[in-house]
Amino acid sequence: MTQQTRVPETESTPGSGQVSAAQQNVEEQLVRNVLRSFEDCQDPRLKQLMQSLVTHLHAFIRDVRLTEEEWNKAIEFLTAVGHITDDRRQEFILLSDVFGASMQTINVNHEAYGDATEATVFGPFFVEDAPRIENGGDIAGAAPGEPCWVEGTVKDTDGNPVPNARIEVWEADEDGFYDVQYSDQRVSGRAHLYSDDDGNYRFWGLTPTPYPIPHDGPVGKMLEAVGRSPMRASHLHFMVTKPGLRTLVTHIFVRGDELLKYDTVFGVKASLIKDFVQQDPGTPTPDGRELGGRAWARTRFDLVLPPAAD
Amino acid sequence: MTQQTRVPETESTPGSGQVSAAQQNVEEQLVRNVLRSFEDCQDPRLKQLMQSLVTHLHAFIRDVRLTEEEWNKAIEFLTAVGHITDDRRQEFILLSDVFGASMQTINVNHEAYGDATEATVFGPFFVEDAPRIENGGDIAGAAPGEPCWVEGTVKDTDGNPVPNARIEVWEADEDGFYDVQYSDQRVSGRAHLYSDDDGNYRFWGLTPTPYPIPHDGPVGKMLEAVGRSPMRASHLHFMVTKPGLRTLVTHIFVRGDELLKYDTVFGVKASLIKDFVQQDPGTPTPDGRELGGRAWARTRFDLVLPPAAD
Repeated sequence: MTQQTRVPETESTPGSGQVSAAQQNVEEQLVRNVLRSFEDCQDPRLKQLMQSLVTHLHAFIRDVRLTEEEWNKAIEFLTAVGHITDDRRQEFILLSDVFGASMQTINVNHEAYGDATEATVFGPFFVEDAPRIENGGDIAGAAPGEPCWVEGTVKDTDGNPVPNARIEVWEADEDGFYDVQYSDQRVSGRAHLYSDDDGNYRFWGLTPTPYPIPHDGPVGKMLEAVGRSPMRASHLHFMVTKPGLRTLVTHIFVRGDELLKYDTVFGVKASLIKDFVQQDPGTPTPDGRELGGRAWARTRFDLVLPPAAD
Repeated sequence: MTQQTRVPETESTPGSGQVSAAQQNVEEQLVRNVLRSFEDCQDPRLKQLMQSLVTHLHAFIRDVRLTEEEWNKAIEFLTAVGHITDDRRQEFILLSDVFGASMQTINVNHEAYGDATEATVFGPFFVEDAPRIENGGDIAGAAPGEPCWVEGTVKDTDGNPVPNARIEVWEADEDGFYDVQYSDQRVSGRAHLYSDDDGNYRFWGLTPTPYPIPHDGPVGKMLEAVGRSPMRASHLHFMVTKPGLRTLVTHIFVRGDELLKYDTVFGVKASLIKDFVQQDPGTPTPDGRELGGRAWARTRFDLVLPPAAD
């Protein structure tokens, strides 16, 4: 065990004093046997992954003194997660998300680098080949919701503007659904655009609204059993790519959203919470767009990309 | 972390020195947030299970510095395990078995108790309502294989004979298949009987032969990738039940079987390895049964059952 594994003590630590030395020996011998079974693995990384997984899996079983009934329930739960998963629904990703495992994987792979923009979870709703819009265009399409002007600059960690960065944006509509969650093949609430020669970008989207992750399956049942909400904090997704720079997958969140503390996939980072400034009906828009007397909002998100890894 | 988690160090411990204090803080804050999300769980045991699982899951991700590509492969792997699982095939149990998780759960729930017979994995091939045979009857039915006489006594941990204990036995045929693996609805290689007034039992079965776990699915592919054999050591399953005594699920193994060291589900315990004594063709059988000049074998398995838990 390394220093990293010293996470805060939880109530899950059992009364190990109840286990005899002979019993501990039986349990530890099994762990050694399982670890040894991977000794002939020719791929050193795969061997490392398997041996670490076995170490932590057995520590879990021994720490909680897992009962056979609980083991059975776990097998049934995983089976149900597998059976609801198909081309349109990925319950294993949901499960990883609600345990914070997706976010921890992002953390591990996007270590803090100077003032580079922080990453967060990718989520299951990205679609390849979203429509291209010009700078200042509209990503919302037919999606209902309050118009929101989004602008910012893309820079590298030396402070140089990054022109021609590809910016993918996607979000739910005001009813909390992404286009792909409707059955009518609509494409709305998503697009890609490129930063201009000065690294600037701007577009019309929708003011983000909160929504639940799909919670009619086994993961939703689990959240209910443990008293957790299935809601995600309101957010707008970004993926920014530019050759030579590290690809950034992130969201921005809405300051003041009461769900920021309880985002069920643990995607919120303080640096990603932005002011979405409400504009009264009739307030002139930055690009002169006529909104028919509707209220709108505006926000700013400046992006900083570190160099790509070797 | 308790003393129990101090399993032997493996090569999976990463260079934690490469991770900055700021980065460690980000990762640990996430773990704290996830643990906190289970604080409102009204079921204390469920809360303990979830918080311990999260602790170990995040420790794994951080220890190995799991890459996003590896995370993706893990999601794909679990999805494949889910999709091959149906009423006849349980790939999640196989997965638990080959990681030694099933065996560790058995260990945790069947702590050493005096000279009580040790338990081992249940496996996926037990069937309810196997035919009843009299003491001395034949469990093999139409299953091909070498006849094997099995006898023993059932006692409690005070040394008293246990009459009328229900003894379920099941095994693969000489081709390595259980009856339920054939599509013709046969029932063979399984039965139940009861110990007599003196606690003795005896039956004809088949000399156990080795066989692979089903390895044409994702678990089999994983075993191949890590250089592990899918073979189980030769064995004969027992489940013994008697009101007031602890139910015993176990196997016996064949001394001299070269697979004893590599049993892919880690079910072997030294106390469960028995002498299967080969008998030349024509050797008289214990019950006078005529075997038509075939060779046969015999073994003895004395069982000791501890009191049932409260």
